[in-house]
Amino acid sequence: MERSVFFDELKRCSQIVNDVFYQEKYRESFKPEQLRDAVYSYLSRPAKRFRPGVVFFSCGAVGGTEEQARLAAASVEVYHTWTLVHDDIIDNDSKRRGFPTIHEEYRLKAMDWGYQPNEAKDLGRNVAILTGDLQHAWAVRLLLESIELGVPVPVVLDLVGRMENELTNGLVAGEALDVMYAAKPITELTETEVLTMLELKTGVLYEFCGIAGASIGLGQSAAENGLVRAIGRFARQCGTAFQLQDDILGIIGDEKLLGKAVDSDIREGKRTTIVLHAFSNASSKEQEFMVETLGNPEATEEEIQKVKQLLIEYNGVEYTRHLAESIVNRAVEEIEPLPDSKYKELLLTWAKYVVNREF
Amino acid sequence: MERSVFFDELKRCSQIVNDVFYQEKYRESFKPEQLRDAVYSYLSRPAKRFRPGVVFFSCGAVGGTEEQARLAAASVEVYHTWTLVHDDIIDNDSKRRGFPTIHEEYRLKAMDWGYQPNEAKDLGRNVAILTGDLQHAWAVRLLLESIELGVPVPVVLDLVGRMENELTNGLVAGEALDVMYAAKPITELTETEVLTMLELKTGVLYEFCGIAGASIGLGQSAAENGLVRAIGRFARQCGTAFQLQDDILGIIGDEKLLGKAVDSDIREGKRTTIVLHAFSNASSKEQEFMVETLGNPEATEEEIQKVKQLLIEYNGVEYTRHLAESIVNRAVEEIEPLPDSKYKELLLTWAKYVVNREF
Repeated sequence: MERSVFFDELKRCSQIVNDVFYQEKYRESFKPEQLRDAVYSYLSRPAKRFRPGVVFFSCGAVGGTEEQARLAAASVEVYHTWTLVHDDIIDNDSKRRGFPTIHEEYRLKAMDWGYQPNEAKDLGRNVAILTGDLQHAWAVRLLLESIELGVPVPVVLDLVGRMENELTNGLVAGEALDVMYAAKPITELTETEVLTMLELKTGVLYEFCGIAGASIGLGQSAAENGLVRAIGRFARQCGTAFQLQDDILGIIGDEKLLGKAVDSDIREGKRTTIVLHAFSNASSKEQEFMVETLGNPEATEEEIQKVKQLLIEYNGVEYTRHLAESIVNRAVEEIEPLPDSKYKELLLTWAKYVVNREF
Repeated sequence: MERSVFFDELKRCSQIVNDVFYQEKYRESFKPEQLRDAVYSYLSRPAKRFRPGVVFFSCGAVGGTEEQARLAAASVEVYHTWTLVHDDIIDNDSKRRGFPTIHEEYRLKAMDWGYQPNEAKDLGRNVAILTGDLQHAWAVRLLLESIELGVPVPVVLDLVGRMENELTNGLVAGEALDVMYAAKPITELTETEVLTMLELKTGVLYEFCGIAGASIGLGQSAAENGLVRAIGRFARQCGTAFQLQDDILGIIGDEKLLGKAVDSDIREGKRTTIVLHAFSNASSKEQEFMVETLGNPEATEEEIQKVKQLLIEYNGVEYTRHLAESIVNRAVEEIEPLPDSKYKELLLTWAKYVVNREF
């Protein structure tokens, strides 16, 4: 399947979930008005909507309809959004999808309203905390309302329970580990730890998307049908590989295509398999230099370029590319038993895309 | 019923929900370990557990068993806890139940670990955001698992939907209004606005407790049984009156009994019906003085005492007392149809307590 077909399909999926988001019954439930705007802020920005896509494609691949999966697809996007809003506060990030993060957006607004700098910062943080909380609840509500679309009650109960146990606990643990690892010396981290963190931060939500779509399509929960679990594993692995490719593009990506500086991962000292692998192969003098430069916001352009060279030279990038490819190859095996269909093709195209993409 | 019997029963309820909290299957789901400790921090501190109490008593009053209501009771306490954790960040509060708030607790820890002051503050905030997120999910999970105790699926679905729609949307709106009103001039606020805010911040969660207990006890949802709705209204009104009594104690309470300074409401410029009522009766010169002093952290002890006198003299306290009593009287009428029982007595004793309590 052409990649352009895949993206056209994603756009169609995006339209379906957008229509859900803007239903009057949801819009009017968020009060006061200022907070409602914040709830819709990220959702109104351009995004690829991979997660709703995986829900729709997984549902279709087992014979389900898009109509049945509509609210679950909207739910996973809203769920993803609350984690972004809270993570952006945690990471002190100021941009998201090309615009200010929620806490930054409302800090700027408060400055316009005449708040003192400290008060404006607090207000931005407060709006962002409450916005994420509202979205978290909204995600559960959307999933629950799948019952109205004819999804069997046991399937919905299983999904809500999974969302609020394995998914949230996994995702929050991943975010916490990410914060903790950033403060740990490179020498004290193992590749397994980094991969587990990536799986928790990205993989478990994709696994949830696969399980949601497949169990809605089949009318059976993951415990009842092995195919649901297989599609879940497929999506989990592709999600993890997506993140590895992200790390690669963070070193050798094209700034123009990515629309962001590619040095930030080095400046922030991000702990990736690229860094770990190259570090283990470097000489002790080079290791010393890497420790000094990685995570040093005042590193010179020259030093950044030198680290970049070392990461490539010592096969950090190449190694991670192989890792991502082997993960995707295993993932693809999981869904081989599926009958041929447009939706299976879409899942396979996504799997190929996650490791071949250049932005 | 003696008040001491009521408190003994609350202690018993507290024991039941504590046993739920510390079950291995819950404890082990929170990772990493540092975050698990944070999730249990507030739950391990002394607290009266009114909300689980209302769940148990409402369930018992319609003929249900405590065993059936066990997980729902634990759920409402965990739910309450996440809102406290996030509100404490928002309000920049440093104490909760006699100990540091989560964000303050982890800020202090980070200082001990050698973090810079700014980094320590961020870390405290980050732990608190993630802790509340985990507790939010845990509350949904506990409620859902009520199915395992034999609570009918439609009742559980109704309760989870209610928690993540009316309850969360109401509570978050209440918190947002509280923050917004604190920045508004007294003259621009109406009593209705203040009462609505109180109802959202406190009433809706108590309403949920009443509905949860009664619908579990009856095996019918609020839509199916008017008694469930009546008990919900009872609990909502008592919760709102509880908050009004809180405002009264914030002016004329005994510092020793309350274990906290009673001037803080005046210093923080809290918008209460006491302030609104007294303000409307005061002379324009006195109004001017009140506007200057309320919310002025640098007000002298003498000025605080003068405002206190005005609030009493112009019947702000008396008016609010009558308001709270009339709300509780209406509340009590709602549950008159219930047959006599220990649990009905407990609900009535709670209703009396919320307006007569001195701490």
